[in-house]
Amino acid sequence: MSRIVIAVGGNAILNPSRGNPLEQQRIIDNTASEIAQIIREGHDVVLTHGNGPQVGNLLAMQEECGLVHAQPLDVLGAQTQGMIGYLLQQSLDNRLKESGINRQVVTILTQVIVDEFCSSFKTPTKPIGLYYDEEKAQKMMRQGIKMIKDKKGFRKVVASPAPVKIVEENIIKKLVREGAIVIAAGGGGVPVIEKEEKLLGVEAVIDKDLTAGMMASAVGAEVLLILTDVEHASLNYGKENQVNLGEISVTEAERYVKEGHFGKGSMEPKILAALRFIRSGGKMAIISSLDKALPALCGGTGTRVV
Amino acid sequence: MSRIVIAVGGNAILNPSRGNPLEQQRIIDNTASEIAQIIREGHDVVLTHGNGPQVGNLLAMQEECGLVHAQPLDVLGAQTQGMIGYLLQQSLDNRLKESGINRQVVTILTQVIVDEFCSSFKTPTKPIGLYYDEEKAQKMMRQGIKMIKDKKGFRKVVASPAPVKIVEENIIKKLVREGAIVIAAGGGGVPVIEKEEKLLGVEAVIDKDLTAGMMASAVGAEVLLILTDVEHASLNYGKENQVNLGEISVTEAERYVKEGHFGKGSMEPKILAALRFIRSGGKMAIISSLDKALPALCGGTGTRVV
Repeated sequence: MSRIVIAVGGNAILNPSRGNPLEQQRIIDNTASEIAQIIREGHDVVLTHGNGPQVGNLLAMQEECGLVHAQPLDVLGAQTQGMIGYLLQQSLDNRLKESGINRQVVTILTQVIVDEFCSSFKTPTKPIGLYYDEEKAQKMMRQGIKMIKDKKGFRKVVASPAPVKIVEENIIKKLVREGAIVIAAGGGGVPVIEKEEKLLGVEAVIDKDLTAGMMASAVGAEVLLILTDVEHASLNYGKENQVNLGEISVTEAERYVKEGHFGKGSMEPKILAALRFIRSGGKMAIISSLDKALPALCGGTGTRVV
Repeated sequence: MSRIVIAVGGNAILNPSRGNPLEQQRIIDNTASEIAQIIREGHDVVLTHGNGPQVGNLLAMQEECGLVHAQPLDVLGAQTQGMIGYLLQQSLDNRLKESGINRQVVTILTQVIVDEFCSSFKTPTKPIGLYYDEEKAQKMMRQGIKMIKDKKGFRKVVASPAPVKIVEENIIKKLVREGAIVIAAGGGGVPVIEKEEKLLGVEAVIDKDLTAGMMASAVGAEVLLILTDVEHASLNYGKENQVNLGEISVTEAERYVKEGHFGKGSMEPKILAALRFIRSGGKMAIISSLDKALPALCGGTGTRVV
């Protein structure tokens, strides 16, 4: 009976064929079933989620189609919070009712304050949206759009500043205390800066795992559970000498990060989120796969930072 | 110091040039300033809003652009709740802070149950999305898509069933009681049906004023304030003998509806929402324009159903 912040990403939110609503529903239902199992055990849950594929689809539509104005990333983030929050909330609610569990599920639009002076705004590195060929990319770069090239072509890059504060944390905490299952901070939260005490949306994306770690501290959770595509974090990932990590200490985790064992933008932010949570007083952070969520929570598998 | 449900539509949410984000922000800021004035008077506010132009833009992108799958109307409704909720919440929050008012503003994803046997599903009449020429429209109709023709061409039509119940009403009520300013049921709410105790999204749109009337009853509001483009509801609207309505009784309002004084899909649902609210125990329903919100609330203008 703990308070748990769960972050789902990867396959749990993936949408394999460009937004097919039926496949999306099937994937969401599968995710909701796993989360419902955890709630059935009596835990209080705050659920956060990624939004990469969904925001990618909106960006693709905007970039392809000149019919309407493109919306900035804060607005798109808010759109995907509504969309994914709705799908998860409804599906989770249905799964809970099937089990005779009467708990209100609620989705809270969540803004996350970032530091406007974060170096990430000067040198953005997070690729988003469509791939472009060299000619088009050169033209876009001459217009001041920042882009990088990888194997598949050129893509826009945007800032990915660290989360500083969850604007709605008090209300989320209150709702959890009153027994609600809260879905919040989808896609890492809508990125905003604070300027003369006012909030202002910014063109950026926030890592959802880092926000989840901060959420876990903010709501006083005992456990941060990060669900992804692999059952464990690993050393020498994908190599012959791969070692899956079980229980590790903060010191060990810090060392492995320094040694560069974890993929930037994939496993590393999960480990960093875990570290941040434990350092700020959290009991345990677990990284495992969606289908192993409950066993991982019970100590049967997954990587556990303590 | 009343509890007030405010429904904003028309120019308050309008987006004149195909989603231009700067114009959108300006319009939202103006709306938020008017709402902030009401909150400054000490009232508790639940704010609902339309989503016509925003959902229209998403539909236009989907229909024009084959790159990604089209999302159904429940999902699009949820997207616009996130988007408009975010913009209104942030702007309102900033306006309140300017006035030194410390009240939490929160946006709640809201589903609204409709009756799956509502005749509106069999004979849909609500036009949405892009206009098509006759050739394309004929092709679409042969594929089973229901369309109607008006002066500008052919458009898809969808069901617009009456709202039956707000799924999140308890949590909204609780938040209002605890002093939060709640933004909820945007676009009339995400349309869902209840099937074997489970919720299921449907392809429909719900009239936002009817939902606002139901919200006002559900949260025990004293006042329902519907803000639109005109200062009064009128008899013989637009004719030489136009009469602006001030205070009218339920009986009078019912008679005027029967006599067909109010535009279907524009003023009529506002009057019906007012009637529904008063009949179910509400004290007063006011219809006026956004810029006259405060005077209307104080009895200085607007049409008041009592």
